[in-house]
Formats: sequence, structure tokens, C-alpha cells
Amino acid sequence: MKLDAVVAGVGMTHFGRHLDTGLKALGAEAIRSALADAGVDKAEIEAAWVGNAAAGVVTGQECIRGEVVLRGMGMGRLPVVNVENACASASTALNQAAAMVTAGMYDIVLALGVEKLYHPDKTKTFGAFSGAVDVESLAEIMAALAKNAEEEGATTASSGAGTKRSMFMDIYAAVARSHMERYGTTVEQFAKVSAKNSLHGSLNPRAQYRELLSVEDVLSSPMIAEPLTRPMCSPIGDGAAAVVLMSNRKARELGVKNPVKVRSSVLRSGWDRAPDEPGAAALAAGEAYEEAGIGPGDLDVIECHDASAPAEIFAYEDLGLCAKGEGGRLVDEGRTALGGSTPVNTSGGLLRKGHPVGATGLAQIVELTEQLQGRSGDRQVDGARIGLAHNGGGTIGADVAALCVTILAR
Amino acid sequence: MKLDAVVAGVGMTHFGRHLDTGLKALGAEAIRSALADAGVDKAEIEAAWVGNAAAGVVTGQECIRGEVVLRGMGMGRLPVVNVENACASASTALNQAAAMVTAGMYDIVLALGVEKLYHPDKTKTFGAFSGAVDVESLAEIMAALAKNAEEEGATTASSGAGTKRSMFMDIYAAVARSHMERYGTTVEQFAKVSAKNSLHGSLNPRAQYRELLSVEDVLSSPMIAEPLTRPMCSPIGDGAAAVVLMSNRKARELGVKNPVKVRSSVLRSGWDRAPDEPGAAALAAGEAYEEAGIGPGDLDVIECHDASAPAEIFAYEDLGLCAKGEGGRLVDEGRTALGGSTPVNTSGGLLRKGHPVGATGLAQIVELTEQLQGRSGDRQVDGARIGLAHNGGGTIGADVAALCVTILAR
Repeated sequence: MKLDAVVAGVGMTHFGRHLDTGLKALGAEAIRSALADAGVDKAEIEAAWVGNAAAGVVTGQECIRGEVVLRGMGMGRLPVVNVENACASASTALNQAAAMVTAGMYDIVLALGVEKLYHPDKTKTFGAFSGAVDVESLAEIMAALAKNAEEEGATTASSGAGTKRSMFMDIYAAVARSHMERYGTTVEQFAKVSAKNSLHGSLNPRAQYRELLSVEDVLSSPMIAEPLTRPMCSPIGDGAAAVVLMSNRKARELGVKNPVKVRSSVLRSGWDRAPDEPGAAALAAGEAYEEAGIGPGDLDVIECHDASAPAEIFAYEDLGLCAKGEGGRLVDEGRTALGGSTPVNTSGGLLRKGHPVGATGLAQIVELTEQLQGRSGDRQVDGARIGLAHNGGGTIGADVAALCVTILAR
Repeated sequence: MKLDAVVAGVGMTHFGRHLDTGLKALGAEAIRSALADAGVDKAEIEAAWVGNAAAGVVTGQECIRGEVVLRGMGMGRLPVVNVENACASASTALNQAAAMVTAGMYDIVLALGVEKLYHPDKTKTFGAFSGAVDVESLAEIMAALAKNAEEEGATTASSGAGTKRSMFMDIYAAVARSHMERYGTTVEQFAKVSAKNSLHGSLNPRAQYRELLSVEDVLSSPMIAEPLTRPMCSPIGDGAAAVVLMSNRKARELGVKNPVKVRSSVLRSGWDRAPDEPGAAALAAGEAYEEAGIGPGDLDVIECHDASAPAEIFAYEDLGLCAKGEGGRLVDEGRTALGGSTPVNTSGGLLRKGHPVGATGLAQIVELTEQLQGRSGDRQVDGARIGLAHNGGGTIGADVAALCVTILAR
């Protein structure tokens, strides 16, 4: 179905460590900037979709996260739908909000993603991610990771709930080793992704890390899970991102300046696929291109889910920027860096801008919207007209659990 | 906006204590019966909305609850949106699913509510509910409850997170005392609600409690929070309920027998309202009547959110069955019992059928659908044509956090 919704305004907080700021304050800051950007009053918002993944575990706020955040803004009465899809929670919120506007249910709505991951007790933070897999088969997942690490001669043991890092880095490490073995992808190529995104992040005032890293810096950093060093793994972070969506008609009526069209938004779940079967990301990307009537060659700028450096390379392949196994070459050729043919993660990506999981999918939309409106300052992609966001969350079998691809155009 | 969706099939598990059954098995049972009832194969489902409120705290399954449950059924690939609105999670799932079908996004979708509350460690179960309020003002809520209990001379102390009962019973008790004082509502009237629903529940093979209780039985039961005795409080429970929704066109095309129309579905949030200002329930009910083009006098059967016996009386007033303060009289006159003018909670309600919170809103739809299709056996309301479901969750200020009213018609 053709979407009929535009991004009328965007806003986000600085991503980082906000130990003394609660969900309500983070959410309010993002909402206020998105409302101001759209030029609408909070009373004009007719409904809200709110993405969050970890507040239940980290802050104790379950069940009515969105209502609580909106209460902090003095926004009541409206329908609030709390949506959750692990690290893809915020893109799910956008997907639902855009569909409802297209359906004519509402004219002006809010999509919000908000997350607090920092906690004085770090096991609480990492424990939050253990709920993003099928917990009834957790023992099985951990055993497979341990076996894989042993076979690959990895120097780090398997982790999991209650430890000092997310089990997802072990999963990414296992997939990275398999990609290296099969396609000849190198650790240097992973390091180049991190170095590239550190350059992009250094130009983004809202990024959690702005330090410039060389490939050597990345390679010589502490090992987290073989072959991933610390800058190849996205950090934990706190933050919020918000988007005001409108129908085309309403945006024209209100005289919204430079609205950005949502050309397509496709959400798909993963499944217990065969090893060579394309997964949810390739499926969602294919449908999103078809709905938007474009192909990967038409993209001017991309924000993808680089929760780890190898994940960005896998995304190149899933999005059809290159054939399977050739992702590493794109980084070598500089095609995905600022100045290249298709810059990827101009915000710094999850690796450098940060990854407050439930906010990430909408932070991608904030970056793309600003790029398409030509207001990205030092990291502006000249003449950007079409952008794509790729946001994934959780694990089902050997696939991502939820994957959302959104295509925006000015 | 006029909804264009029909209930094509319904299914649910027995509600009760299922300590050895996981989320996946409960969900699969409800889905399988709904699919069989609709006469469609699982491969025909195009998208799913999944409501759950407490799995994160009780089972550790956060983030991707729906994908995990559907994986257990061998259902992958499709878009899955996990929605959460405390005890109104499942009606929120239905609300979203019905809107998307109306929008023409999909032809055949699934709405599922699934919950496991029983846990060997009861503080875990009750802890789940402490996330259904604004946790940043939890201390304030507990202090107000304690003060209120003291002023009213209640015999029970305040409870809360980590104790052996839900703080919501303290909240209901406080509102009940205020209703008694202001309108002369009596404890006997509350007891009559529980007795009536025990009669209805005794006729429902899927109810958690089927024992028949007299008014005296209810009054002489152990006190939970003055004036609420145990049978005036909904129990904890495990269970799942599922609904297959279709567009009218698709239902005709597939020859679905006796489809039930979703005439309206209105979701609203509560706010920090003034004491005499109507809340989210009255607001949602008014809009739902308007959308459906009917009034309270047109209703043949109602399922309402009797999480406590007084809550059913408050619902009569919010739904416009009587004026404010006159709810108790309706019970005295037997108007809401089977055989009365507008039977309420023919399933036994949350009090007797049980209240696995994230499944409750869809279990109400299961009951109403069967009533409107004339297949409710001993508890059938003769000639029922129009039914209403009232499902609320969480607390914001002095209001419910999320409230959904759905009107169905054959």
C-alpha cells in the first residue's frame, strides 16, 4: 500500500550517559524539539506510538511507558500505543504511525523512541538484552555460542545474561567469523567501518563519541569478543528521538516547510531460516524498494543498524548495495564514507552516535530528514534526495527478530 | 473513522494456573482455536499485534514477545507489533489490528493477548504490576494510599511493589470508599457484583473459578483491602486469547460464517484530571457510541473491566448505563445479571473467569463474539445483537492510564 505521510518535524536529545535524567525528561526534550521543528502545539497531536525496549528491566517502568512520558509533558487523553520490538522498537513506532496517518485515522501524530540503559548496576543494563531472544531456548543459544567460540579458537568465552557485556556481541562475533571464513572478509574491513563512522560521528554534535579513530586505533583496542574490539561494538546509551508525522494534506494546510515524504516502511519478522535463505532484512528491503518504486542505486544516504561493525557490512549486502560477500570491498573503496557514492551512517551510526536501543530507529529518521532537508552542516551529503533507514532488533533462530526498512524522499 | 473489519474467528485457553506451560504453548493454543474457528490456515495471516504486560518481569521475555510466541507456531516472516498498555494490552492489539484492516493494509490479521502471571515467587508476580503506574512518582502514590487508608480507618496497611498483593487493590479500595461516602453505595452492592459474576462464571467452562458464591459468602471472605474481600478482587492467572480479523470483503470472499462486525474501537489515555472531570473511560465510551451510531440503551451484552467488584459499578456509570452514583442500584435491581435488561460479564468477568492481564481484553472479545453468534450455551443472552467491551489498564494520576471501548454487532 502506498504511504501518504510526511515527516513534518524531528527532534532528539544528545545520546550518551544521562544517569540523573529520567525517561520523562529525555522524552520531553525530544518531543519539544520535534513539535517546535514542525511548528505545531502539543495539543494538536492526535495519537502517539512510543517505542521502548528496556525500561521495564532498567527503570522498573513497564506497561504504560508512553503514557508516563507524555504525562510528563502534560499530554493526556490521546490514544497511546506502547510498541516493542527490541532495538527496532522506534522504527516499529514510525511504521505504525505512518500507516495510521495514511489510513486517514489521524492527521497529526507523534512517534517517539526513548531509552535509558545506563544504570549503576551494569548487570541490570546487560540483563535487559537477554529478553530480546527466545528465552525459552536461552540455554540452547548459549550452548551454541560456546561451541562456536571453541571451534573457532576464539579467545573469549561466551557471555550472556548477568555478565558485563551483551550476548549480542557474541552472536555478532560468531556471524562475523563465519563471514570471514566464507567470503574472505577481513578484520581490517571491520575496523575501517568503525574508523569511517568515527569520522562521521566527529561531525555530529549529538553523538555519544566524537573522538576520531584510525583503523590502527580500532584494531589495537581491547578485544570484546573475537574478532570484535571495543570500537567495533555499539556502546550502551540513554536518549530519545521524536518525529511528528502528518498527512500530506495537513502539511500543505499548515504550510509545513520542506516536509519529507515517507515513501515506504516495511516491517518483517525473522524466522528459523535455512543458512542460505535470505532473512528478514533482505525481504523487507526488497519490499520497501518495490513500494517506493526505486532500487538501491537510487539511494543518496543510508542509516543502517551497525550495532557492531560487521553488521554494517552485512547490511550493505542485505540492502542490495553489493552482492553477498562483497560488503567488505565497499568499505575498502570508500563508497560508503562521506564523499563516496552512497554515504552510510553519516550520523556516526550506532557505533559512534550511540545506541539507546528503543530510540535508535527514530534517531535514524532524524538524521535522514535533516540530510534530505540540507541542514546537516559539516556532514551534509550534497543534493541528497532519497534516504533509507535499516533498523533491526532481537534474534530468532539465525535471523534478526524484527527488521524495519523505511525509505524517505524530499 | 468508520471501521471496516470483522471478527472471523476467536479462540482462548482455559484461564487459570498453568505453571508448567510457557508463553509459547499458551499462545499457540489460543491461535490454533482462532484459526480453526475462522477456517483459515496460519500461512494466510498477514500481520499480528500481540499484547502482553508482564512477561518481562515474570518470565524474562521482553522485547520480542510476539515473535517468540509465533515462532512456537512456525509462523515467521510476517510483521509483528508487540503492544503494551498494562491490563488493556489486548484491546490495544485489537484496536490496532482493526484499524490496519480498515485502512486496507492487510486482509487477514491476528490479534493475540497472552500472559503468564503465576510464578513460584509471588513477589515477582505482584512486582509486575508496580510497572503499570508512573514509577517516577511511585513514592508519592504509596504515601497517598497510606494516608488515605489511615484517614478512612481502614484495617489494612498499604501495600505495593514486593508485597503479596497488587497495589491496584489499594487504589480500588480507596476509590470504593470515596464512592460509598459520596453516593451511599454499599459493601453489599459490591458483594452482589461478585455473587452475580460467580453465577455467570459457574456457567463458563473456561473460567478460572466456577464455584457459586452467595452475597454472604463474599462478605464473610478474608479482607484484602477495606472494604474489598477476596472475591471482590480479580485473581492472578495465566492464559491467552486470540482473534482473527478480516476485511468485510475478504470474509465474504472466503464465505466466513456469522462474522461479527467491529463497529467501533476507541483507545484513550488518562490524565491528571480534576476530581469531577470525566475520565478516559467516559470519553472513550462516548466516542465509541458516536462512531457506532448507538447509545447505551442499544447494548444487549457487556464485558467490562471488573478488576475489582467496585470497578464494575464504576463502569456502569462511565458507560452511561446510569447516572453517576447510581451504579449500585443497577445491581440491586438485577439489571446486569443474566436475564436482566443488559447482562454484564456473562463470562464471569475478570473476577471469576480470571485476569491474565495481557489476554483479558481479547478474552472479552471472545465472549462477546460467541454471544452475538448465539453459541454461549447456558449463559446465552437471547437474541443478542450488539455488545460492548470495556478494558482498562494502569494508573495515571487519578485516572486509568489506558482505556479501550470496543463495540461489536452481528
